[in-house]
Amino acid sequence: MTLLTDFGPHSEHVGALHAVLVAANPRLIRVDLAHDIPAGDVRFGAVVLARLSAHLPRAVHLAVVDPGVGLARRGIAIRLAGGGALVGPDNGLLGLAARAHGPLEVVVLPSTTTDAATFDGRDVFAPAAAHLATGGDLRDLGAPVDLQGIHVPEIAPANVRRGVLRAEILGCDRFGNIQLAASAEDAAMAGLAIGQAVALTGPGTDARARVGRTFADVAVGGLLVYVDSHGHLAVAENRGDAARRLGTRAGESLTIAGTPTPTS
Amino acid sequence: MTLLTDFGPHSEHVGALHAVLVAANPRLIRVDLAHDIPAGDVRFGAVVLARLSAHLPRAVHLAVVDPGVGLARRGIAIRLAGGGALVGPDNGLLGLAARAHGPLEVVVLPSTTTDAATFDGRDVFAPAAAHLATGGDLRDLGAPVDLQGIHVPEIAPANVRRGVLRAEILGCDRFGNIQLAASAEDAAMAGLAIGQAVALTGPGTDARARVGRTFADVAVGGLLVYVDSHGHLAVAENRGDAARRLGTRAGESLTIAGTPTPTS
Amino acid sequence: MTLLTDFGPHSEHVGALHAVLVAANPRLIRVDLAHDIPAGDVRFGAVVLARLSAHLPRAVHLAVVDPGVGLARRGIAIRLAGGGALVGPDNGLLGLAARAHGPLEVVVLPSTTTDAATFDGRDVFAPAAAHLATGGDLRDLGAPVDLQGIHVPEIAPANVRRGVLRAEILGCDRFGNIQLAASAEDAAMAGLAIGQAVALTGPGTDARARVGRTFADVAVGGLLVYVDSHGHLAVAENRGDAARRLGTRAGESLTIAGTPTPTS
Repeated sequence: MTLLTDFGPHSEHVGALHAVLVAANPRLIRVDLAHDIPAGDVRFGAVVLARLSAHLPRAVHLAVVDPGVGLARRGIAIRLAGGGALVGPDNGLLGLAARAHGPLEVVVLPSTTTDAATFDGRDVFAPAAAHLATGGDLRDLGAPVDLQGIHVPEIAPANVRRGVLRAEILGCDRFGNIQLAASAEDAAMAGLAIGQAVALTGPGTDARARVGRTFADVAVGGLLVYVDSHGHLAVAENRGDAARRLGTRAGESLTIAGTPTPTS
Repeated sequence: MTLLTDFGPHSEHVGALHAVLVAANPRLIRVDLAHDIPAGDVRFGAVVLARLSAHLPRAVHLAVVDPGVGLARRGIAIRLAGGGALVGPDNGLLGLAARAHGPLEVVVLPSTTTDAATFDGRDVFAPAAAHLATGGDLRDLGAPVDLQGIHVPEIAPANVRRGVLRAEILGCDRFGNIQLAASAEDAAMAGLAIGQAVALTGPGTDARARVGRTFADVAVGGLLVYVDSHGHLAVAENRGDAARRLGTRAGESLTIAGTPTPTS
Repeated sequence: MTLLTDFGPHSEHVGALHAVLVAANPRLIRVDLAHDIPAGDVRFGAVVLARLSAHLPRAVHLAVVDPGVGLARRGIAIRLAGGGALVGPDNGLLGLAARAHGPLEVVVLPSTTTDAATFDGRDVFAPAAAHLATGGDLRDLGAPVDLQGIHVPEIAPANVRRGVLRAEILGCDRFGNIQLAASAEDAAMAGLAIGQAVALTGPGTDARARVGRTFADVAVGGLLVYVDSHGHLAVAENRGDAARRLGTRAGESLTIAGTPTPTS
């Protein structure tokens, strides 16, 4: 089974989840997918969960990014087509992974979120995940509800015109690489071609970059627009930190404008 | 078995402990409880160890928060009533967990701390913990000493008067929630009631908050005084970072003063 | 098997490696050696890998610190004399560990690094490491090449004169302890004796310290020059952060000069 949270690396909240899981079943194979999701960033958590859970389609995935803890939102567990399951808050966090794997059945977990003294990750989600990972039945956990009701995070599609592409920033990694809510296809539709010089503009941002395939396509310190290993359009600085340099933040939009080149 | 340190998440010091444990016994089930304890904060380490070890009463708990490494303090291993054990420096770190589980026997580990070239966690504590987690006898590790001699960290009890509560700050988490050395009972004795407006004062701090059960009890950006999931009185900001906003630090005191309400 | 990267603690890149490993073989024993290597610091990664892999000589060690990803550098896998193996980029990262364990055979991994869309850690190195850790043959992974071609990072030897030692800074840990590319023997050759007062000078640094064995040899707030638990000469501040105080950085040199004492 896997764990993904915004609790912070090796924080005691992560430790509490592991302790509850091991107490329930010491033999569980536990895989930490990520615990450095920016605090409360449900959308980026959903994106990361969707792509990492793809490696383990038969695993139970426990995910907690839950800025609304103590507010009105339900906890759910979802049985997936590949044999796996998702457990966590129904705030959008599980939505992209559910869609990618194919949800078969969803139940609402009995919640205690009317009280801040509850730590749902520890008290509700981890026990439910351990139950499923030990071969327990989804129906034991709660009442089935409509599959259509699973929340999916809103990610604005890239705005593509000839020679110009505007996309939301999904997040950044430790190296300062900026990941955009745009695909290779979006870039092609905008006519952005390998080798092309482009302008990057956003809130407080105005910089020059080049479209390329690899860091070697720009000089050290140069900005590169490329398709990253997840298939997202991204911005990086060769041997530098593009996010710090551009001062961009998740949720903001970035516009990439270049000289249009003919698309076939 | 579990690990708790102030070595920093995924630092090489944490890796060294794991490597030594796996070299001693590849089949050990290893659970990282926390490695982001503030550097040298023995007291907060003790608090976290006590509450997380409660989930795994039969485990061997290896804990290292040791600002006095190289100074005169002994290493100990403690056999617990529930079948578990504690291993680490006898500087208070193990004291609260020992008291919670019920210590049965304690031995002093042969120490090499007269030399900074020794990394006790790696060279003394991890091998001792692996020995115990593999079913080894406590008496193999060192000479028994008096159970009364186990150090317990000093945590000042909350100062409670009618309408006013003053308590030490134990620590903060990644979300900026401030944990106080006070309980729900302390709050009740001070007459702090759900819904009540209170003033928070401390070194450089002067703010308004509201006593509540959940984040929904205050507006976004509002400060909430509540009982957290560990049973501690705590201060949080709805969708914000209370610790950064108030500028408070572990070890400082915070005073919560409100309009007294009658206690039954 | 073990993992060492500069991907950042509990980042999704670390999670991706674990997910790929578990997908290949759920029974692998996975040990995280370190994931907080400073971004791109191949040399420090090599030092840490060499010393931590010493605890597990028969393990497969997967290491990725790869500022040149997307540039021309090959990936390799090395079979070691003790029964273990190393897998990662051939940029120096594996060189010190290879030398320490004794390399028997090296193969070049089929690489896809001409495209930034490849995440070699996930797509090339982790599958290769899982293959070896599952008992697979090195020759299955690629074509053998000359053992002499394995890159080893350049670390300047300490410059030692009577009473003066100058050495490169290898890195710092969470506690601000500064590790130097110098040994106890270097210190002895320079005539630095326990108890001696010394001056520390470097770029923007000018401070007084004392040679000692343990933190107790200096007052709280005092700077200590000592041989650390890895056998490196190091600088620490008793209950403080020497790296922050001195403003030093990895790669810079530090000069330690004292009143010479006779060496036997």
